[in-house]
Amino acid sequence: MSRPVTLFTGQWADLPLEKLAEKVSGWGFDGLELACWGDHFEVDRALNEDSYVQSRWDILNKYGLKCFSISNHLVGQCVCDLIDQRHQRILPPRLWGDGEPEGVRQRCAQEMKDNARAAKLFGVDVVNGFTGSSVWGMFYFFPPTTQDDIEAGYKDFADRWTPIFDVFQQEGVRYGLEVHPTEIAYDIVTARRALDAVNNHPAFGFNFDPSHFVHQFVDPVEFINEFPDRIYHAHVKDARVQLTGRNSILSSHLDFGDPRRGWDFVSPGHGDVEWDPIIRALNRIGYNGPLSIEWEDTGMDRDWGAPESLAMVRGQDFTASNVAFDAAFGSE
Amino acid sequence: MSRPVTLFTGQWADLPLEKLAEKVSGWGFDGLELACWGDHFEVDRALNEDSYVQSRWDILNKYGLKCFSISNHLVGQCVCDLIDQRHQRILPPRLWGDGEPEGVRQRCAQEMKDNARAAKLFGVDVVNGFTGSSVWGMFYFFPPTTQDDIEAGYKDFADRWTPIFDVFQQEGVRYGLEVHPTEIAYDIVTARRALDAVNNHPAFGFNFDPSHFVHQFVDPVEFINEFPDRIYHAHVKDARVQLTGRNSILSSHLDFGDPRRGWDFVSPGHGDVEWDPIIRALNRIGYNGPLSIEWEDTGMDRDWGAPESLAMVRGQDFTASNVAFDAAFGSE
Amino acid sequence: MSRPVTLFTGQWADLPLEKLAEKVSGWGFDGLELACWGDHFEVDRALNEDSYVQSRWDILNKYGLKCFSISNHLVGQCVCDLIDQRHQRILPPRLWGDGEPEGVRQRCAQEMKDNARAAKLFGVDVVNGFTGSSVWGMFYFFPPTTQDDIEAGYKDFADRWTPIFDVFQQEGVRYGLEVHPTEIAYDIVTARRALDAVNNHPAFGFNFDPSHFVHQFVDPVEFINEFPDRIYHAHVKDARVQLTGRNSILSSHLDFGDPRRGWDFVSPGHGDVEWDPIIRALNRIGYNGPLSIEWEDTGMDRDWGAPESLAMVRGQDFTASNVAFDAAFGSE
Amino acid sequence: MSRPVTLFTGQWADLPLEKLAEKVSGWGFDGLELACWGDHFEVDRALNEDSYVQSRWDILNKYGLKCFSISNHLVGQCVCDLIDQRHQRILPPRLWGDGEPEGVRQRCAQEMKDNARAAKLFGVDVVNGFTGSSVWGMFYFFPPTTQDDIEAGYKDFADRWTPIFDVFQQEGVRYGLEVHPTEIAYDIVTARRALDAVNNHPAFGFNFDPSHFVHQFVDPVEFINEFPDRIYHAHVKDARVQLTGRNSILSSHLDFGDPRRGWDFVSPGHGDVEWDPIIRALNRIGYNGPLSIEWEDTGMDRDWGAPESLAMVRGQDFTASNVAFDAAFGSE
Amino acid sequence: MSRPVTLFTGQWADLPLEKLAEKVSGWGFDGLELACWGDHFEVDRALNEDSYVQSRWDILNKYGLKCFSISNHLVGQCVCDLIDQRHQRILPPRLWGDGEPEGVRQRCAQEMKDNARAAKLFGVDVVNGFTGSSVWGMFYFFPPTTQDDIEAGYKDFADRWTPIFDVFQQEGVRYGLEVHPTEIAYDIVTARRALDAVNNHPAFGFNFDPSHFVHQFVDPVEFINEFPDRIYHAHVKDARVQLTGRNSILSSHLDFGDPRRGWDFVSPGHGDVEWDPIIRALNRIGYNGPLSIEWEDTGMDRDWGAPESLAMVRGQDFTASNVAFDAAFGSE
Amino acid sequence: MSRPVTLFTGQWADLPLEKLAEKVSGWGFDGLELACWGDHFEVDRALNEDSYVQSRWDILNKYGLKCFSISNHLVGQCVCDLIDQRHQRILPPRLWGDGEPEGVRQRCAQEMKDNARAAKLFGVDVVNGFTGSSVWGMFYFFPPTTQDDIEAGYKDFADRWTPIFDVFQQEGVRYGLEVHPTEIAYDIVTARRALDAVNNHPAFGFNFDPSHFVHQFVDPVEFINEFPDRIYHAHVKDARVQLTGRNSILSSHLDFGDPRRGWDFVSPGHGDVEWDPIIRALNRIGYNGPLSIEWEDTGMDRDWGAPESLAMVRGQDFTASNVAFDAAFGSE
Repeated sequence: MSRPVTLFTGQWADLPLEKLAEKVSGWGFDGLELACWGDHFEVDRALNEDSYVQSRWDILNKYGLKCFSISNHLVGQCVCDLIDQRHQRILPPRLWGDGEPEGVRQRCAQEMKDNARAAKLFGVDVVNGFTGSSVWGMFYFFPPTTQDDIEAGYKDFADRWTPIFDVFQQEGVRYGLEVHPTEIAYDIVTARRALDAVNNHPAFGFNFDPSHFVHQFVDPVEFINEFPDRIYHAHVKDARVQLTGRNSILSSHLDFGDPRRGWDFVSPGHGDVEWDPIIRALNRIGYNGPLSIEWEDTGMDRDWGAPESLAMVRGQDFTASNVAFDAAFGSE
Repeated sequence: MSRPVTLFTGQWADLPLEKLAEKVSGWGFDGLELACWGDHFEVDRALNEDSYVQSRWDILNKYGLKCFSISNHLVGQCVCDLIDQRHQRILPPRLWGDGEPEGVRQRCAQEMKDNARAAKLFGVDVVNGFTGSSVWGMFYFFPPTTQDDIEAGYKDFADRWTPIFDVFQQEGVRYGLEVHPTEIAYDIVTARRALDAVNNHPAFGFNFDPSHFVHQFVDPVEFINEFPDRIYHAHVKDARVQLTGRNSILSSHLDFGDPRRGWDFVSPGHGDVEWDPIIRALNRIGYNGPLSIEWEDTGMDRDWGAPESLAMVRGQDFTASNVAFDAAFGSE
Repeated sequence: MSRPVTLFTGQWADLPLEKLAEKVSGWGFDGLELACWGDHFEVDRALNEDSYVQSRWDILNKYGLKCFSISNHLVGQCVCDLIDQRHQRILPPRLWGDGEPEGVRQRCAQEMKDNARAAKLFGVDVVNGFTGSSVWGMFYFFPPTTQDDIEAGYKDFADRWTPIFDVFQQEGVRYGLEVHPTEIAYDIVTARRALDAVNNHPAFGFNFDPSHFVHQFVDPVEFINEFPDRIYHAHVKDARVQLTGRNSILSSHLDFGDPRRGWDFVSPGHGDVEWDPIIRALNRIGYNGPLSIEWEDTGMDRDWGAPESLAMVRGQDFTASNVAFDAAFGSE
Repeated sequence: MSRPVTLFTGQWADLPLEKLAEKVSGWGFDGLELACWGDHFEVDRALNEDSYVQSRWDILNKYGLKCFSISNHLVGQCVCDLIDQRHQRILPPRLWGDGEPEGVRQRCAQEMKDNARAAKLFGVDVVNGFTGSSVWGMFYFFPPTTQDDIEAGYKDFADRWTPIFDVFQQEGVRYGLEVHPTEIAYDIVTARRALDAVNNHPAFGFNFDPSHFVHQFVDPVEFINEFPDRIYHAHVKDARVQLTGRNSILSSHLDFGDPRRGWDFVSPGHGDVEWDPIIRALNRIGYNGPLSIEWEDTGMDRDWGAPESLAMVRGQDFTASNVAFDAAFGSE
Repeated sequence: MSRPVTLFTGQWADLPLEKLAEKVSGWGFDGLELACWGDHFEVDRALNEDSYVQSRWDILNKYGLKCFSISNHLVGQCVCDLIDQRHQRILPPRLWGDGEPEGVRQRCAQEMKDNARAAKLFGVDVVNGFTGSSVWGMFYFFPPTTQDDIEAGYKDFADRWTPIFDVFQQEGVRYGLEVHPTEIAYDIVTARRALDAVNNHPAFGFNFDPSHFVHQFVDPVEFINEFPDRIYHAHVKDARVQLTGRNSILSSHLDFGDPRRGWDFVSPGHGDVEWDPIIRALNRIGYNGPLSIEWEDTGMDRDWGAPESLAMVRGQDFTASNVAFDAAFGSE
Repeated sequence: MSRPVTLFTGQWADLPLEKLAEKVSGWGFDGLELACWGDHFEVDRALNEDSYVQSRWDILNKYGLKCFSISNHLVGQCVCDLIDQRHQRILPPRLWGDGEPEGVRQRCAQEMKDNARAAKLFGVDVVNGFTGSSVWGMFYFFPPTTQDDIEAGYKDFADRWTPIFDVFQQEGVRYGLEVHPTEIAYDIVTARRALDAVNNHPAFGFNFDPSHFVHQFVDPVEFINEFPDRIYHAHVKDARVQLTGRNSILSSHLDFGDPRRGWDFVSPGHGDVEWDPIIRALNRIGYNGPLSIEWEDTGMDRDWGAPESLAMVRGQDFTASNVAFDAAFGSE
């Protein structure tokens, strides 16, 4: 049986949920992964308004859509980050407040605890998101950077997120970090280090997203093989490396969509991600959750791309064999 | 909105236009790019017979087909070429005459001026074609060849074609050279040199055709990036490099279709052209003209290939995004 | 006209023929290549029971399926092999007997003669299969191995198979060895050596199967080019090389499906076989027989994969052009 | 005539200059590029102590060594950087002071002006170094980052460095930024942007170092081609990309020398830099300055590596031809 | 300090030891790795003749050569192999006897125990060699091969070799299996399986030889990383992959040196082995033993190749850095 | 025994032979391959002046140089070429005459016959050179080009050169065509066609030069394998492909040395030619003639490059093994 295919609503937050649901249902998606911004899923209202959670389901049910997870990348990012003016743009005023960094971080940490509670109320057991990192910006070791400098960042992560993960565990909800540059974990080595930092907290795992690996030249299948029991959710997103001898892999402070960048996000199926080996790996580890399309491609109209992506995923999501073939050679 | 997809009729000139139009319409093409040979579009009759131009439209309209351009590669080729017996085979007797080279060249130059006038009468504003070249054959610099030798060829091109381009300009029609080996421009460097030679004459631009670049190992996207305002028309044609250590990229004087060649033309989608980056580049420069399939593949039945190509193009011709995605992340 | 697409039943021998025929017909296949094991095609019954052959056609006809060949890889394997316990698992007791190696080999040789007779009765003129080899296991030349050691194996092959091929010739049936590791011929060089060994016996040719070449890094098209008049049948089967720096191409005594192997079989279209050049090569040599899908992929459900493969083949099986294109450029 | 080969002393600052000079002279180097840290070249003493500058020349002369440039990467870095604890480790107490960031930046800016004056006194006309950057850490555009955010960093660079470059110009000295991640310019696009930001100030150019390009997949030759008149100095340093499917190009916060990194610095000749095309490019632009080995390889003993590097450079540093060869074909 | 470079004498056994020693000493080698065949090192004489061991040292000392290990690939091979006529050619009559397989295997097992004792007497603590394998020939899983079939081979290995390794341990000598096709371990996966089979017997480790990995596409550095404490000895031998689309990686039963093979052994430095990363890996694990050239290249005169190989190794064998470079940036 | 290494003097014809001989002898070359232009070797004087031939030997002997062949590319080129102004530059006035094409061709044909006679007199049995071609310029089949068009060129070659080869045969001298674009043979396919055209005339063979193959992506070893008995002489010359996505393999009518070309000649060892497999192939076919360096690299000083090339060749020219290595494993 194939996995459900959902659309992550984060890049469609300019549309009201109902309008988006109607459109996505018409394309044939099985459900939505709701972003906790725009009007798609509001954590504070979920906890404070009696009818809010039901109102979300009413919309989903009206269009025959399922929901397996909600996601809060933006608030999660602010828990560990060194806060600057860019964070104000991604937070509501109640969390930004006066913008004093430590205050922002603490309010966001509190919000992530509430996020676990809201997910429980809403009836989903996975929240996806980011963690931020106080040491991401030190990834190139100049000025000379020591392992003590780096270790301090992982300790900060553990100090801030362990209490949050404890709440997740109490609520029976799991947190799937989308492993991604700018986060405490952005590849296999740092994902292992992050798990170590929180003593393999059972509430902490990953939202597997191959698009963030291919431009680092990390094989997404190796990530699945390394963390078979920590894949709590899966995104279908794609990226393409476009190195010409003039383009840098660091992308030169250029906007997405600029052909002088060394890599870019593209509609799933148009990039360097090889989906067949990923499906086989997900089959091997027994991942049965949704394949959630995170659609982001500044060079393609999204109404053209989203249904095309859905067709691509449907055409790839095969299940494993239950016949040992050579056994069939046996003469009896 | 997607671009119209047309079929270039040059390789189907053995079929009468009406028969071809019926077939192509049935496959779902939007229109035709008429070749100025066979009975598809006859320049002399267009200028001399009152009803001729309308007769072409009658056929097109009967089958619901549009037309955005006409093409005259064969006569254009003879304007600058060193004329030999091969040119007789591609010219009508009225242009070949006694075959004396300079006479052939001058009659063909005159015909190209008429071509502009015929296009105007017919109601299209792009003519595609070749230019020929008196120095193409010197591309390998032995016997020792000087830049003076080469420069003479570019001057000859400018001398012969500037008066033709002037007529085009007067008629409000543009000439799209299909950049191609055997022509005055066959890659990025020579296209720039040709533009320089005619002082960037506004009537002179290019019929972009990626199939002629891939076997030269030139990236078609770089061509578009280099000449964003000179892409007057676009062909969809494909080629494949097939180097085995025994095949030469120069192809050993072997016929197309021989597997010992180092490259060959193949049906669009079966070769080395990557269409996704080309569509993105055409979107960036704002090219809104037709995507015209020039179908040539000696290893495939054309009635199998042409509709397959059409489906390939339809599945690739997306438009650019009009949403700045990360903006959608903003919480308000 | 396209070639018929059949399914080789060898990996479906756990299903009764009728059940398989119904399923395969529903997917739209044109026919079956019957395996001579399970109940699909039984050589002894074909020769000994009057109605048996007709019973097979009754099933095929009921579901509108054709049959162009039958295959007996398992018995053929035992004609030349050094017999060990693994062979018992692939033979019926009447051929295994007491398991004394030379007796097994002789009974299997006799059975292959009968196979030719059964094919004649059944009305097909191609039998596919294996030959076994007494020297396959010596492919790595340590302990030091001489050409005399190897030549002995080819002589053994000639001694055992020439009488079998003589029967095939008498019956008007041809034998297509599936060139494959573990056989007397597994690549171009050894296929030539095998042909030489039997003096190019006209009954001996090949069942072309590209999946066995790609993991040897042999270009399947080169095989076709080398033996244009010996391609008696063609399989559509695919394989993928997956070398990571840790995986060995020899595959470490690991089961198919283990991602640590250096290569694996995968559903056609999911592997490294390039189908377009193979179709062109088959067109060049005038092969008009079936394209027979041998479906084997331990990572994919076969009911998902078989119809997907069929669609892939249908979309690839074009015929050659019957127009010399540049001729169409001619002005007359 | 070949270029002089010097050794950059920055990674040998644990050795007193005299001891280093003796060693390097023995290996056969032509000279030294003095680092402005350790006791190699002290800017404050150069300006304040009458005999200091001569004392440096005395050492150099004693060992027959030349000097064409001095370098101050560490102080330059602090002019634009967001100052953190790592900067304290690379500055002397007189510049770090109380560590208040703006105070550190201003003292370092003043020191760089003095550096120009000291270079003039010392008799060299090139100073190499870094610039720092307030926006380097934003290279991955999440949290969503606008071009206004980035542009602010380039304005900051212009504001802080233009007055410094003015002093350089007055002194007749040029500043060669070593284009490098963590700096205002780290590739071709950002180098162009930095030049634009300071209106192509004539005192501002580049210390070409290919090792910082190869792990960004930027072709060092393209950098030379792009900025032929801004190559003020050249480093010989090498790096190697080591991507395995598990290693990230961002290098996972791992120390240099760890084989799990996606790239690393290695002794010149052991990495991915292709020296032949670089020498040809330097010949084309007429660069006649030193080739200065910056030796850094945590996996090799430096006393083994430095002389090996010298031999490598000597074997590569050819000059251009002054004969037009085919001219020699002429019969007279 | 660099490692000693020795020559393995196995491929020079046609020369008397004294003659070989003179030649090798003249080329500048540091020592020899003596083969236990020819007259180089005879196990039976070492145990039975009082002066034999001293006679070997006398020759070595006369030419200033050291010895760190002796090797007995040929007898080791016969401990687990399925014995056939090829084994007779590599054994002395006293071990071959009547050739009855089990008798041969047992006599060879006894000889390997004596080999440990002879090494002890001779004063070296490493013996290199092969193990043979009863399941090597089953590496391609047809006829269908189960993991039980394979496991039987590893049990056979454990049963036969554990008593031998026990003697090695008593004598304080270690056995370095040269991981190699035809042996119980031929890549990373099977080396792990072999270690598991003998419960990581401390006397059992590996003679690292990269030439046997590159044609399997296994990265030799990954082998070192996987077994850092089991590298007991190291060979310098090279191989080259030569795949043309016609050559099979399995090499078609062709002799070494035939250009139609898919791979071949070549003189060190002429093949696909990358020596720099191997030296770094050996440095990381602290391997301080000899680098022993096993010279085998059927296309090159060995008297030309051996000294060339020596020079190649000398130029590669650098030691690790003992300076943390960026530390040198510190201003104090 | 190694092969003699000579220098082809064609690109040094601006230097008098004596001056060149002194220089080349000082570098350590074994001899010269004399060009038949400049004053190096003059065919007419050799036939007409009694002392001329001896005068050449006197110079050679004075500097201890040997000579195995003379070469006349320039005159040979004019035998079949379509003559244009470029040919005047490479011919002496006595051969150019009035420049009427057919007259030029016939005088050059006569000169090539004399060249054979002069070689005989001089005492060498190989003359190298070009043939020219009347159809080279038609290598791209547009305007549509038939095999009849091409065949005419091969017949013209046979008609003009067969009488010349007859004279060569009478004199006991062989002609080595340097297979090269612009000649009747420029790759494997056309070399075979040229041999066929002259019925494998025994005087006609090849001067093997790998530099002309690599930019066509033809493997030089395949050429040697194809024509083992027609390799009459061998050049050591190198070329490099430099494709960036902007550079065309046809090289855009740009001068050698321009980095925008898709390929260029470079000093041997600096390009894409792999010398090791070529030496092995020459060993296999038993070629014992000179390795003659044709030095051409517009980016390198020739006095730097020629001795470097010589060292490169000396380090590569190994002979084949005369020991069957595994035989040495034998215990007796």
